[in-house]
Amino acid sequence: MWKPDRLSAQPLYQQIANDLERRISYGEFPPGAMLPSERKLAEQLGVNRSTVILAYAELRSLGIIESRSGSGTRVSKYKWGATPKHTPNWHRYVEGGSFLPNLPFLRRIREALQQNPELIDFASGELASDLAPAEEINALMKVNQYTEYLGYNHPQGYAPLRKSLVQYLHQHRDIQTTDSSILITSGSQQSLYLITQCLLAPGDAVAIEDPSYCYSLPMFQSAGLRLFRLPVDHRGVRPEGIRSLYKKHRIKMVFVNPNFQNPTGTLLDEERRNELLRVTSELGLPIVEDDPFSLTAYDGASRPPLKSIDAMGSVIYIGSFSKIAASGLRVGWMVAPNSVVERLADARQQMDFGLSIVPQKVAEQFLNSDYFQPHLERLRMRLLYKRDLLIEALRKELPGLVSFMVPQGGLHLWCKIIPEVNDHRLLEEAIRRGIVFVPGSVYGSDSGYVRFTYGRSKADEIEPGISKFAEALRSVLS
Amino acid sequence: MWKPDRLSAQPLYQQIANDLERRISYGEFPPGAMLPSERKLAEQLGVNRSTVILAYAELRSLGIIESRSGSGTRVSKYKWGATPKHTPNWHRYVEGGSFLPNLPFLRRIREALQQNPELIDFASGELASDLAPAEEINALMKVNQYTEYLGYNHPQGYAPLRKSLVQYLHQHRDIQTTDSSILITSGSQQSLYLITQCLLAPGDAVAIEDPSYCYSLPMFQSAGLRLFRLPVDHRGVRPEGIRSLYKKHRIKMVFVNPNFQNPTGTLLDEERRNELLRVTSELGLPIVEDDPFSLTAYDGASRPPLKSIDAMGSVIYIGSFSKIAASGLRVGWMVAPNSVVERLADARQQMDFGLSIVPQKVAEQFLNSDYFQPHLERLRMRLLYKRDLLIEALRKELPGLVSFMVPQGGLHLWCKIIPEVNDHRLLEEAIRRGIVFVPGSVYGSDSGYVRFTYGRSKADEIEPGISKFAEALRSVLS
Repeated sequence: MWKPDRLSAQPLYQQIANDLERRISYGEFPPGAMLPSERKLAEQLGVNRSTVILAYAELRSLGIIESRSGSGTRVSKYKWGATPKHTPNWHRYVEGGSFLPNLPFLRRIREALQQNPELIDFASGELASDLAPAEEINALMKVNQYTEYLGYNHPQGYAPLRKSLVQYLHQHRDIQTTDSSILITSGSQQSLYLITQCLLAPGDAVAIEDPSYCYSLPMFQSAGLRLFRLPVDHRGVRPEGIRSLYKKHRIKMVFVNPNFQNPTGTLLDEERRNELLRVTSELGLPIVEDDPFSLTAYDGASRPPLKSIDAMGSVIYIGSFSKIAASGLRVGWMVAPNSVVERLADARQQMDFGLSIVPQKVAEQFLNSDYFQPHLERLRMRLLYKRDLLIEALRKELPGLVSFMVPQGGLHLWCKIIPEVNDHRLLEEAIRRGIVFVPGSVYGSDSGYVRFTYGRSKADEIEPGISKFAEALRSVLS
Repeated sequence: MWKPDRLSAQPLYQQIANDLERRISYGEFPPGAMLPSERKLAEQLGVNRSTVILAYAELRSLGIIESRSGSGTRVSKYKWGATPKHTPNWHRYVEGGSFLPNLPFLRRIREALQQNPELIDFASGELASDLAPAEEINALMKVNQYTEYLGYNHPQGYAPLRKSLVQYLHQHRDIQTTDSSILITSGSQQSLYLITQCLLAPGDAVAIEDPSYCYSLPMFQSAGLRLFRLPVDHRGVRPEGIRSLYKKHRIKMVFVNPNFQNPTGTLLDEERRNELLRVTSELGLPIVEDDPFSLTAYDGASRPPLKSIDAMGSVIYIGSFSKIAASGLRVGWMVAPNSVVERLADARQQMDFGLSIVPQKVAEQFLNSDYFQPHLERLRMRLLYKRDLLIEALRKELPGLVSFMVPQGGLHLWCKIIPEVNDHRLLEEAIRRGIVFVPGSVYGSDSGYVRFTYGRSKADEIEPGISKFAEALRSVLS
C-alpha cells in the first residue's frame, strides 16, 4: 500500500490529498462511494488523524468529496458530469448478494494483520515460514521441466498427482482408493465448499462438532444449512447424539475432524470411531472426515482415519498439503465415491475451471521426492518444540488463570480462561499490545476460550507473545 | 485410466472383473452404486461390449453386483455385512444440491475428449500447446527463486502481481487503476462466479448478449438469476434494448464481451460503446465487461475497453491470462471499485482461501519479462494463420453450405449452417468421425449455428478436421 513520503518537501496532507484524488479519478472510489473514516485511513497510512483531516478538507474545498455529519465522507456525485448520469449504487450490490461475509472477529483479525505485519500471530491456522519446505520446493522447481501442455486439465485434477496420492494415502493413511475416486481441490476449504453447495440444499440439517471450525465458516450459513452440534470432550466428539438429531431434525450429513480436532486439538478415541461409523451406517448417513493434521502426530504414529475402516462407503475424506507443507500451495484433495467426485468436479469447473497445473505438479514432485519424509520428521519435531514453548509460557505467565489439554499433534492449543472475560475486549487489548489470537466463540463455544495457534509464529515470538497476552488479560480483568 | 493388458495370459474379461472388484472394495463404487453401462465401460476400456458382459457376469456370479433389466447394474447391498447397516443414498445427494450440472452438450463434448484424446478439438476455448509460452515460463521458473514465504497471501492476491497489472492495464488497455482496485482470480470463470454469487440475489434480472457464452454457464441459473437478451449483430451488441429491459424487468446488471465476442467474434463499434455507457449510466446500471481476447487483435491495434472511458465508475472489468498465455495457469483479474473488490475478496476466502502463490508469481514474472511482447506478436501471427486455414477449409469443403463473418481477433469463428440441421445428430456424427465443436444452441442461439475454435487445434489438423465435419454434415443432410 502507498505511504506518504516523510522526506518530501510536499506536506504529508497534500501528498495524501493528491493520492486520494488519483484513486478517486481511477474509479477505486467512484462518485458516491464512502471513503475510509479519518481514523482508519490514519491507521493505514501511519499518520496522525489530524493530517487526514487536513487532506479531506483540501479535497472538500475542491468539491471532490463531501462530508455530512454522522454519515462519513463520500465522493461527490455531481463533480463528474451532467446530472442525469449516475454511478451504480455499489453499496446496495455489495450488501445484496446471497453470500454472507466473514465473521466480524475474523475480519477484525485479518484487518489487524494487514495493518501491522509485525503482530505476533497466534490466529492464522497455518505453518510459519521456517516450517514450510520452501527450499525443497525451490530446488524441485529448478530441476524439473514445466514445458508440458499448460491447457485446462482433467476436471478431477492433474492425473500424475492423483496417482501419487493413491500411493500416499495407502502408505500414510491406510486408505485404499483409486485415482478416479480422487478430486484435487484448492485445499480443504474448497472441498467443504463443494460439498455444502452441491450435495446439500438450503434448509438441510447437518451435524457438526461443538466447538468446530465449521462454525467459523459462513459458507454453511450461506448455503442455508441448519447446524446442529455434537459435543467434543477429551476423547473427541461424542457420537451418541447423532440418532436423536436424525430423528428430530433429519440431519443429512455429519462433519468431523477426528485427528487433533480444530480448535480443541483432541484425538477421537477408537471406541468412539467405531461407534460413529456404526451409528451413521445404520442411518445411512454420510460422514465428511476432514483430516489435515494427522501427519503432524508428534509420536510419528498417527491414528488411521475413519475412511480406512469405512466398509460401507459412508465417508467423504478430505486432506490437504496446507498443514503439512505450505498453505500457499493451495493443493488439497477429496476421496469419495465416483458419482460424488464426478458431480463435484463438474460443479468446480463452473466455479473456477479447475486448479492451476503448476502447484499440482510441484505437489506431485514433492510427494515423490526424497525431501518429503525428512520434511515431515522435521516438521513434527519443530511443532512439538513450539508447542512446548507455548505451554511453558502459559504456565509461567498465567498460573491459575488458564487451563488446557496438551495437544499430541496439529497446530492448535485450546485454552480456557478461568475468570470470566469479555472476548471482544480481550482481543482488542491484545491487538493493541501486538498479538492476535482467535476468540473461542468464533468456533461456537461459550465465551472464555481462546484458540492459540503455535504453528504460525516464530519460536522466539512465543514467550513474548504470551507475555503480551497476559498483560492484555490482566488489563481486561482489572 | 487403467486399461486391460492385451499381452497378459489372463483373459481380458477376467482382468476387467478383477479391476472392478478392487474399485468396488475401495469404495469408488460403494454398495448400491450404479456401475457404468456395458456400452460406456467398453468405450472407456477400449474393448468389445461382449467382454464387459462377461466381466459383469463373473462379478454377478460372485454376488458382488446385481443387474435388473431396465435399471442397469449396481453393486450388491448385502454382500458387505449385517442387514441394518447401509450406505448413504449417494444418488440422492448428488441430485439434491442446489448447484446445477453443466449443459448436456458440454458434458458430452468433455466425455468425448476424455475418451479419445486424438479427437480434433474445435470445441475447447483455449490455446494449443504451440501457442502457449511454455518454454518461456519454464525458463523463468528455473532462474527465479521461490523461497519466499508460502503462506496464505493477501485476500486480493499476490501484491507484486497486482502492481504489475496496474502497469499492464495502463500500457495495453488504456485503463488507469490502482492495485487496491484489483482482485486476482482463478480466471474469468471465477470472476463471473463471484459476481453472480455475491453481488446479485436469486430472482434478480440481468441482461446478457444473444448469443453469449454466459448462456452456456449454468452458474447464472444456479444463482437463480433471470436472463434477458440483447441481440448481437455484425457491429456487436445492440444497447437500445437496455432501457425497456430495465423498465419491464428491473435488470440489475449488464454482461458484455465487447472485443471479439464469444461466440460471434464481433467487435463492438465505437458509437455503440458510447451508447452503452450512456444508457447504463443514466439508469445507474453496472456493466460487467469481459475482455479476454483484446490482445489477440490481428492488426495489433486492439480497441480500448469500455473501462477506459468509464467516467462514472459503472464498469467491472474482467481480464485473464487464459487466452493470451496459458489457461492452465489459472490466473485472471478483476478491476472494480474498492468496496466491490473487498466484498468479493472476503467471499473468495470462504470458497477456496485464495489462489496459489506459485502461478501468481509465474504470471508476474512473465508479464515483466522480455518474453511477453514477442510472445504476443507470435501469438497473433499464429492465430491469424490458423484462422485463415480454417476459412480456406470451410470455403473449400462446404461451399454454399455455410456463411460466417471473418473474425479480426480472438479464437472463435461463428458459422451459420445454411440448410436446416439437427444439432444433436450433427455433433454425434462429428464425434464418430473424430472431431468436436460446440453447437450454437449452447450459447442460446437458434439451432443451425456452430462455434469453431481455431485456437486449440494444431495447424495441420484444421483442414482434415473440417473435411470430417463436412462428411458429418452431409451424412446428417442426406
